Amino acid sequence: MKAIILAVGSELAYGQTVDTNSAFLARALSSLGITPVAHWTVGDDRGQIASAITTAAEAADVVLISGGLGPTPDDLTRQAIADAMGSELRLNERCLAKIKTFFDSRGRKMRPSNRIQAMIPIGAEPLDNPLGTAPGIAARLHRAQLFALPGVPDEMKQMFRQCVACRLPTDSGVIVHRTVHTFGLGESDIGERLEDLLKSDSGAKLGTTVAAGLVSIRITSEATDKNGAERQVDEIAAEIRSRLGHLVVGEDDDTMASAVGKLLRERSQTLATAESCTGGLLGRMITSAPGASEYYLGGVIAYSNAVKRKHLGLPAKLLERHGAVSEPVAAAMAAGCKKQFESDWAIAVTGIAGPDGGTEEKPVGLVYIALAGEGGIEVHRNIFPGMRDVVRLRAATAAMNYLRIAMLPR
Amino acid sequence: MKAIILAVGSELAYGQTVDTNSAFLARALSSLGITPVAHWTVGDDRGQIASAITTAAEAADVVLISGGLGPTPDDLTRQAIADAMGSELRLNERCLAKIKTFFDSRGRKMRPSNRIQAMIPIGAEPLDNPLGTAPGIAARLHRAQLFALPGVPDEMKQMFRQCVACRLPTDSGVIVHRTVHTFGLGESDIGERLEDLLKSDSGAKLGTTVAAGLVSIRITSEATDKNGAERQVDEIAAEIRSRLGHLVVGEDDDTMASAVGKLLRERSQTLATAESCTGGLLGRMITSAPGASEYYLGGVIAYSNAVKRKHLGLPAKLLERHGAVSEPVAAAMAAGCKKQFESDWAIAVTGIAGPDGGTEEKPVGLVYIALAGEGGIEVHRNIFPGMRDVVRLRAATAAMNYLRIAMLPR
Repeated sequence: MKAIILAVGSELAYGQTVDTNSAFLARALSSLGITPVAHWTVGDDRGQIASAITTAAEAADVVLISGGLGPTPDDLTRQAIADAMGSELRLNERCLAKIKTFFDSRGRKMRPSNRIQAMIPIGAEPLDNPLGTAPGIAARLHRAQLFALPGVPDEMKQMFRQCVACRLPTDSGVIVHRTVHTFGLGESDIGERLEDLLKSDSGAKLGTTVAAGLVSIRITSEATDKNGAERQVDEIAAEIRSRLGHLVVGEDDDTMASAVGKLLRERSQTLATAESCTGGLLGRMITSAPGASEYYLGGVIAYSNAVKRKHLGLPAKLLERHGAVSEPVAAAMAAGCKKQFESDWAIAVTGIAGPDGGTEEKPVGLVYIALAGEGGIEVHRNIFPGMRDVVRLRAATAAMNYLRIAMLPR
Repeated sequence: MKAIILAVGSELAYGQTVDTNSAFLARALSSLGITPVAHWTVGDDRGQIASAITTAAEAADVVLISGGLGPTPDDLTRQAIADAMGSELRLNERCLAKIKTFFDSRGRKMRPSNRIQAMIPIGAEPLDNPLGTAPGIAARLHRAQLFALPGVPDEMKQMFRQCVACRLPTDSGVIVHRTVHTFGLGESDIGERLEDLLKSDSGAKLGTTVAAGLVSIRITSEATDKNGAERQVDEIAAEIRSRLGHLVVGEDDDTMASAVGKLLRERSQTLATAESCTGGLLGRMITSAPGASEYYLGGVIAYSNAVKRKHLGLPAKLLERHGAVSEPVAAAMAAGCKKQFESDWAIAVTGIAGPDGGTEEKPVGLVYIALAGEGGIEVHRNIFPGMRDVVRLRAATAAMNYLRIAMLPR
């Protein structure tokens, strides 16, 4: 079973927006055993959209489209589907009623322009959108089952899960993916430790990807036998884990934050944070794991020195003598944070994220990370390359990793 | 002049990695007056890559390829280019010498596998890679000038700037983009207020995009005369601003955070934050604008009630009587934050981001946002639809917008 994914929108074609919908849909399809053979992106051009739909529906068993279902005149996917089907749009009263209800329930008035969203090609059927006004469209065309979803990522994802996944053709083949996430070594070092596995011709394919300092090893097994594929992937993942030890953060949907959260929960311990250059990012990442309130008490975003003094109890002299970005200040922030929040662990981050503020002695990218816990306080000096947002992301990730390592059994 | 952008890699086709290269290349092309009409993504399959190259080279004047030039057996772009050209690979001694030098200069030994990277299709020419081992490839095929670059984003970008941009066909045309960001109305409402502009056939194309609650209007003018195109875009942007007034947050690279920062800086005022459900996201967004330390003092991430009491001075009774997610608690958090941080403004956010914790009375998505400032305290009750991360993002964005509106001249 082959699928082609089509993203519609001039903001995508011009590169003003990065398309993340297609990657989501590709992952979702391949987890269902359907191979995404290509993604195509086209702008808001009715002829080009229709032509892409026709070509895709002739070449693949499943065609998933995202975007172009909004209420404005540049939203042309529904017309293009009708064109490709040799059909035309007709008002669907049930959809119109739902759109009206959507606005009513929010105390808003439906606009005349929303009426276009209730127009469905004759011969196609609408798909409910629980989060927005635009219904999706399902149709058969040439050899393909075709589904069109709105481009708003949240609506697209929810509709895929609720209305599309269960209607996709099932196939005897399966694709099993596993991703093992690591932190602490570069891609080439990881590559060397796993060289024989990466080159092996045993059926499963391995590859590596780098994102935000984590090096991830992707394992893909395509087979007719689900158990066999899963066993193979399990064995390779176990081998990788045994070779890389504490470098392994987790698998698949695990993140650094969820790995830290799992360890804190197991130990019934609590955490607080004191952030300067990361400005709340560390807290945000920790709390992106649902249920974080079980172990995360909160934190101080100590952007100004006054806040470092007042809320973390730092002596003014310490700040004057060493500067806010220094080892003693990081240590005092972590100690002050642990005391103020009465937590088992406290992480403090202070650094220079850039683009300005660097000196020869303290360059942009210099970040001190302190961890206060059971065994006292440890401070790590890092220089993270990259731009402001990258420095901040790496600092927050490294900070969580120090805590993760400290909690692992020795 | 039309371009097609081709991204090669199974990690992209399977959706394990989001393709950001194509968006970069599309922006770069359109700034040079070349219209990116489509992006295609295919996996590491020699036949599929070759077939995509052939189709693209027949349909467009420029074909840009990224990915598939590495040293491992799944890197097949150079073979596919040779196939599409009806040619074959030949070792390029100059490239081989450069690869050897690359390793030598880093004190590393060239691996036999890197030899394949010096193989160039007969009839094509290599492009220098100053950052890595893989040379790029330039060729003519059918009606197109074709360029293949490595998939590593940094190498790809540098090579595009150094070796490709100057060799692209020049056209007398230009493409001028402008994006106007708004907050506060839905896409259909914005669409209606601008209906005549969106439908106008005056030469500039307008479209709308929604992301994280912001509705953005994109204006694109393709013309032969740069000044004319810019004037046209200026006039339309001015018309949009005058119609939408305070709904307009900014243009192009402006964000909600930079708009708020600009106003605070103009007024020489300071801001502090008290966050519960957003867990640091609001602080992170505010501090993503460089120079935020001029106006942002810091904040408290008050995830637990103990932190709300201790660091924001909330009476325990208030929390007991109304619950942490309530109008009085939001108001007291903002007032306590303003007092504790001695700031001109304080924003407090408390809500239920989900997935759990909702009740009939207080559903998932319920968020109270309080703003304390010159004129006292205002509290807004919101229900944000969507999943945890979306609720958090919308809450943080709405919180900044209340402050923005409060600072605008009446």
